[in-house]
Amino acid sequence: MTKTYQEFAEKNIPVIDRTMYQFLEESGKSERLLEAMNYSLEAGGKRFRPLLFLATVSFFSQTLEKTHYEVAAALEMIHTYSLIHDDLPAMDDDDLRRGKPTNHKVYGEAIAILSGDALLTEAFHLMATMKIDSGVRTELIRLLAKASGSEGMIAGQVDDILGENERISLKDLQKMHSKKTGALIQYAVEAGVVICSQQFEMKKWLLEYAQNLGIAFQIKDDLLDVIGDESKIGKKIGADEAHNKNTYVSLLGLEGAKNAFANHCELAEESLAKAKELLEIKEPTLLEGILEELKVI
Amino acid sequence: MTKTYQEFAEKNIPVIDRTMYQFLEESGKSERLLEAMNYSLEAGGKRFRPLLFLATVSFFSQTLEKTHYEVAAALEMIHTYSLIHDDLPAMDDDDLRRGKPTNHKVYGEAIAILSGDALLTEAFHLMATMKIDSGVRTELIRLLAKASGSEGMIAGQVDDILGENERISLKDLQKMHSKKTGALIQYAVEAGVVICSQQFEMKKWLLEYAQNLGIAFQIKDDLLDVIGDESKIGKKIGADEAHNKNTYVSLLGLEGAKNAFANHCELAEESLAKAKELLEIKEPTLLEGILEELKVI
Repeated sequence: MTKTYQEFAEKNIPVIDRTMYQFLEESGKSERLLEAMNYSLEAGGKRFRPLLFLATVSFFSQTLEKTHYEVAAALEMIHTYSLIHDDLPAMDDDDLRRGKPTNHKVYGEAIAILSGDALLTEAFHLMATMKIDSGVRTELIRLLAKASGSEGMIAGQVDDILGENERISLKDLQKMHSKKTGALIQYAVEAGVVICSQQFEMKKWLLEYAQNLGIAFQIKDDLLDVIGDESKIGKKIGADEAHNKNTYVSLLGLEGAKNAFANHCELAEESLAKAKELLEIKEPTLLEGILEELKVI
Repeated sequence: MTKTYQEFAEKNIPVIDRTMYQFLEESGKSERLLEAMNYSLEAGGKRFRPLLFLATVSFFSQTLEKTHYEVAAALEMIHTYSLIHDDLPAMDDDDLRRGKPTNHKVYGEAIAILSGDALLTEAFHLMATMKIDSGVRTELIRLLAKASGSEGMIAGQVDDILGENERISLKDLQKMHSKKTGALIQYAVEAGVVICSQQFEMKKWLLEYAQNLGIAFQIKDDLLDVIGDESKIGKKIGADEAHNKNTYVSLLGLEGAKNAFANHCELAEESLAKAKELLEIKEPTLLEGILEELKVI
């Protein structure tokens, strides 16, 4: 981890966390539900999406404020709900997540489903209370719903489930991931652009950066399932192969997947360089820090 | 059904339905997911909540427009998602809903969970695209999230699940239902008030109407489970007793529940009369029509 990005993460994660916990505490009426939601939020996530959003805002030299942390918190809540539901017996049937028992293993399936529903709903609740221009606020809500709904994350999850045990093409695999994990990663960057810049070119380059970052992120996930260190990633490796899942490794082989990973990291770097030119930024930015961090396998 | 209300329902249900189907069709990327969502939306619901919202808007003599149908559609989508998730094996484990196999019986549990998630997310997506004043738009989104989230509908469902097999007091039963079914019914009326009136007194009386309507609605549901006609209500009667559920009938007895039902209908009528006085309305309104319709057991 680059020193700057590490400091940035260490400084901001507690603020993101506090924003989530305080909002849920205030808007919760059921202790058991709150406990189940917090359990998954506290389960040691890297806060990749919220940090990516905050790094995008920082890219425009904006000071981070309450509103920014609220968007970051909503993003993490949506991500966490999707993990709780994905882990359910009817879906991926996972017992461990980040080295800890999954939500339904601790609270039972009913509460796990409901705590996912609640995190999803409260993410929109939180965004709707943000004290910013109401036009920007609804645009941020609209884009979040689009990224996480039936043309984004959920559509990707449906494709993933229906595609198990079936061989698909590399193109279909990319399409599935662009929805399942890519859409929310892109949202993290797009939301920052919506708040900070109206420039068409800027949006174009930063979204290209986000798109390639998202693909690289997914390839890394597939690689780690083959060559990762179980103690570090907090789950058993080899699960994809056991589930007969389509992955970059199963389609391209280990070396092919490593090459594709390097290639998308490079494309992300190039797009970022274009965005930096537009703002005449010479120094390394946190968005490069995120990419450097991603490159470590 | 009073003639006026019947005509109102017959005229508006197709518009509500079209609004839902068109929006989902446009924002959907997975045929299977869309099919599963539509299956439950088409399963013969009475559209009680969206009609209640539209009747509230009509109470203020406003002509019904696209925006109103969008709020109505979002309300029905939230309600339908909650039914799909409630019916899951991990929850109430119901095989039939409105006389048809439940969503997971047809599409499997994974797709049922995801189609619920998608209806919930797309409800907010739809609201965020509405072409009205952006301040009103976020207020409508905020209230919907509040009503359906962890201090509203979901908290009520958690209480219901945790309370099974345990005897609770009448007060606790009312508290549970005020969240589980009451919050969304109240939202239907409150959303109409937010759009049409800024008057404090008006809001007070109409919310009291909604509150009592919501309680009466729930008592009727409990009564029908004991004395209802299976062919009309589309599910087996006696399910509450078999599940050892706390109901108005189990706590008050059949006659006691009937009296409580009549009492809350009367309270709703009285509050409505006060609201009508404020607007100097002499004629019967659709909000009375809804109450008359509810009274038929």
